[in-house]
Order: sequence, then C-alpha cells, then structure tokens
Amino acid sequence: MPKILTLNNGVKIPQIGFGTWKVPNDIAAQQVYDAIKAGYRLFDGATDYGNEKDVGKGIRKAISDGLVKREDLIVVSKIWNSFHSPKNVKLVTKKILSDLGLDYLDVLYMHFPIAQKFVPIEKKYPPGFYCGDNGWEYEEVPLAVTWAAMEELVDEGLVKSIGVSNWSGALIQDLLRGCRIRPQLLQIEHHPYLVQKRLIHWVQAQGIVVTGYSSFGPKSFVELDNPVAIKATPLLTHPTIKKIADAHKATAAQVLLRWATQNGICVIPKSSKKERLLSNLNSDSFDLTEAEIAEIDALDLGLRFNDPWDWSEDPTYKTRIPTFI
Amino acid sequence: MPKILTLNNGVKIPQIGFGTWKVPNDIAAQQVYDAIKAGYRLFDGATDYGNEKDVGKGIRKAISDGLVKREDLIVVSKIWNSFHSPKNVKLVTKKILSDLGLDYLDVLYMHFPIAQKFVPIEKKYPPGFYCGDNGWEYEEVPLAVTWAAMEELVDEGLVKSIGVSNWSGALIQDLLRGCRIRPQLLQIEHHPYLVQKRLIHWVQAQGIVVTGYSSFGPKSFVELDNPVAIKATPLLTHPTIKKIADAHKATAAQVLLRWATQNGICVIPKSSKKERLLSNLNSDSFDLTEAEIAEIDALDLGLRFNDPWDWSEDPTYKTRIPTFI
Repeated sequence: MPKILTLNNGVKIPQIGFGTWKVPNDIAAQQVYDAIKAGYRLFDGATDYGNEKDVGKGIRKAISDGLVKREDLIVVSKIWNSFHSPKNVKLVTKKILSDLGLDYLDVLYMHFPIAQKFVPIEKKYPPGFYCGDNGWEYEEVPLAVTWAAMEELVDEGLVKSIGVSNWSGALIQDLLRGCRIRPQLLQIEHHPYLVQKRLIHWVQAQGIVVTGYSSFGPKSFVELDNPVAIKATPLLTHPTIKKIADAHKATAAQVLLRWATQNGICVIPKSSKKERLLSNLNSDSFDLTEAEIAEIDALDLGLRFNDPWDWSEDPTYKTRIPTFI
Repeated sequence: MPKILTLNNGVKIPQIGFGTWKVPNDIAAQQVYDAIKAGYRLFDGATDYGNEKDVGKGIRKAISDGLVKREDLIVVSKIWNSFHSPKNVKLVTKKILSDLGLDYLDVLYMHFPIAQKFVPIEKKYPPGFYCGDNGWEYEEVPLAVTWAAMEELVDEGLVKSIGVSNWSGALIQDLLRGCRIRPQLLQIEHHPYLVQKRLIHWVQAQGIVVTGYSSFGPKSFVELDNPVAIKATPLLTHPTIKKIADAHKATAAQVLLRWATQNGICVIPKSSKKERLLSNLNSDSFDLTEAEIAEIDALDLGLRFNDPWDWSEDPTYKTRIPTFI
C-alpha cells in the first residue's frame, strides 16, 4: 500500500492514486470499482473529464458492496475555467457532488489559472473550451476571488482540502500573500521531460503537496494527437528508463512513478489492466539510487505537453517542437 | 529621432530611451544631461538603482538650461519590492519625486511581482534585498492590492502611466481580470538569448507596450559577476550579429536594438560615450530583413540572467548554466 502523506491541514492522503482523465464513460464505473478492489483509495477527477457520474457509480457500488467506507476514500475533483465566479464555484461544486452522488469532496482544485466565460450547465456541461457563440471570452474574475469562494466551500464542509492546478510559482506566491486558507495541494504536469525542480522544491517548502499528472510523459498526449508528443521519444521505452527498470526488475512505468514519489510527489496513473493497476500501486516497493534519480533528472527538456498557450487559434502561440526530441 | 509609440491611455513615448541602471552616482547627472543633449527624451530609472537624486539633477539642469521642457521628457521610475503596501506605494512615490525634484512621473512600474517586507526609508534606502535583521521576509500584500494603490496615484496626478516589470503572462492575465486601469507597459529582460515571442505577441495584443531591458544580453550581467553571463557567448561579438551588422554597415549594438524595435519593443540602452549614445538613438535608421530577424530569433536559449529564483540562498534554486552556451 502506498505511503500516506499528511497535508498542511492534517488530512491524510495516499501518495499513489488513480487518475480518471480520459477514462471512457462506459467503463469508468467498472474501472473505479476494480481500482478500489486493487487497493486504490484516491481518485483524481474533474468536471472537465465528463465522467463524474460514472466515477461516482463505481465509488458508490464499492461502498455499498462493503469494499470500503466513504471515509477511507479521497475523492478529488477540479473546478473548470468557466466556473470562476464565486456563485458559479458553489454551483459547480454542487453539480460535481450530485454527479458523484456524494455529500462532500476530499479535494477540490482550481483546474487552471484562467477564468473563462460562464456557460450555463443546461447549455453545455462540461463546456470545455466553448465560451458561447462569440469564440473565446474571459470571465472578469481574479484568481484570488475564485480562491476566496473555494475557501468558503471548506467553511461549509462541502470540501475538505483545496488546491490549485497548472499554476506557476509566481501565481502561487501571490496567492500566499493574500489567502485565508493556504492551498493544500498543487497539481502539475510532471515527467522526466518536464522536471521543474526549483518549482517543486519551493512549493513543497511552502507546505504544499505536489501531485504530478502525466507521469509517463508524451503517452498521455499521443492519444490526443498532440504533435509534440507524437514526435517525442516515448518514456516507457526510453533506454535510460528501461535500463534502470531492468536493474530493479521493475517496469518502466514503475520507475517513472518511483522517480516522482521518491521526490515526495503524489502520482495518479490510470490503467484498465488489473496487473498494471497493481504494479503502479506497488511502485514504491523499491528505491532508486541517487545516481539513477540524477540520470532521470538529466532527461529534462523543459517540455510541456499540456500548455494553455496551445489553446489559441493563433499559430504564434503554439508550442514549438524542439529540434532535440 | 526614434519612432514615437502611443500607449493605451493616449500618452506618447519614444521607442528608444536611456536606461539608468548601474549608472554610477558621481556621473549620473552629467550622463543624463549629455543624453538629453544627444536627443534622448525617455529616462528609465528605479528606486532600486540608488541614483535618482543624481538623475534628477541632470534632468533639472537640462530644463533650466533650456535644452528641453519638462513635458518633452518621459521620466520613468519603479516601485521596489519592499513598498508594496498601499500606504508605502504612496510613500515611496513621494520619495522618488522628491529625489528627482519633479512633481509627477510619466511612468511608474511595479519593479517585480514580489512583495518584500517594508524597510523604513530612514533605515536603508534603497533597501535592496535587505528585509531587516531576520533575513528574507515577505509583505502580506497581493499584487492586485499594490496595483490598486498605483491606480490611485494616476487618479491623483502623481503618475501618468503605470506598468509592471518582470511579470509573467499568467500574472498579467490575472491582473487584467480585475484591474480598473489596464497596465500601459510591461518591462522585461529581452535579448536574442531570451526571445519570449509568445509572451510579447500576446502582451502587445492586449494593448500593452513592451520595453526590453538588457538588450545586449550577458553584457549587463557580467558586470554583476553573474556566473551564467560570464560563461555565455557575448552577443556584441557574436558571429551572427556581427555578420548582420556588417551587411548594414551598422554596429552590433544597433542590430540588437533594431531587432527589438522592429518587433515593436521599446529599448533603454545606456552609454557613457557620446558616439554610442548617438548610434543607439539612431539604431532604427535601417531595417533588418525577415530572414535576418529569423536568424537572430534562432539564437534563443530561453536564458534569463535576471532571475528572482537566484535571489535565494538555497543553491537548489539557482539558474543552471545550460550546457549549450
């Protein structure tokens, strides 16, 4: 069973969880149920993943079947960009809870530091990048105001812990200057091509737990036809990772996860295969040497696949494909 | 005479100015006077440069000698990190004006997006990184609060235009969501080793004029014993820049400035030599070809010399020297 980390509000969470991003709706309930059976206790979801009803079904079946109790689980969601106005923070949180069929969330993140125009739930849910018929529009709400609304959710008991996702160090530093409740968690893209050592070290020193997503790097984004990810050398078959995996009789996936967890980072892999579910969950059963960690660190390319600049229609903003991948 | 740009509040500024960073106190008044004589009309200073009394002397002498009128000049200053509290924003602005001997500023920037603990003017001015005897401390003031205090300076007529310096795109985007007065200017480190095309294109599209500092790259920081700058290939003797300079019978400095101004960016070089003062000021008298601009763009290393991470005592945060410089 994975190591348990204590957040700055005393809440305990397992360091290895199950991520529900891109889990198809028709199999999400079963996958979540299977993951609970395999020993997973943290489920990382989001409004934007569009599968919270199905995730909720899996969770509730596992509870009603007596596999776990609600309080054994850490259920995580994220507020999408179009719900940044204080009243919509509350609105979408109630929608999330109703979709999941639960009466509180363990963790709620602000998904991106970007306030997109509100789209009514009846019109399109989740709205994704749709802002209405006039193309992209912003909502005129500063991040600190959205954060204050999230703090109120904690006061009201709807949410136990709150965090930010895809935030830079400068944004977090500014939030820390004015918030009433310090964030418990930061979730960011994190893999050997995007190491972000300074950011992670500093954030952890602030008492904020870092969760990394897309631990296997390009793999997550190849499915989305991301041109940079398609060009990049896959990490799961990368010679350096394979060599280290062989030395530990581990899988490449386990090495990538262990590299993160050994740095104090939470991970949220997903898998539809029982064997991989288990090997991911047990990926902290061995330790990498300092030399191996340094060797993996050295794969850093500063390469971000999930980059909001790419959301623009204007090609000027698109992530350049580095010549060295 | 340099091209004139119009800010989003209608104020006009010359695209080429004189930067007073690191101009020694004993020669600052004379240098500013000489620069005015040479045709400079914009003077970019800051609390932190510690030479505003001397800069003010040069400006006032030029006015009293009839070289220029006050309204011909754009006088720029920056609020240091330790004056982010609203009352201290006003306090330091009055101190700046009293040091310069002027009754208004044309432009006032927030120098960094970092709120450092207040140090009374009587104790140490400018305070630099000194926060008192307990080492580094923050001031608990969000950037939006400091900005609102700067907006009040505009209301009161103490400052004509306001801007931010060393801010990232995400910080600016958040400011735009809640500000009453949109920033007129962004000032950032900018040279062919730190091109930041996406940021600059986006910021300009928001109606914000970008000013680049350290246009000659490492040169500015070699004087400060910056280890990365010392290792980097100087730009003023870089073969690509030299080749382009020769093709235009221009100096390397002129090519570096023209590369910026042709991208719509303001520049603020300094020089103590009359000939260089003039050649910098006339650096927009030729045009680079698109191919030449692309060749200079391709020198990009994403290499920032003036990086607040380096302010930390902890070596984990220091800028790594890239292996490719």
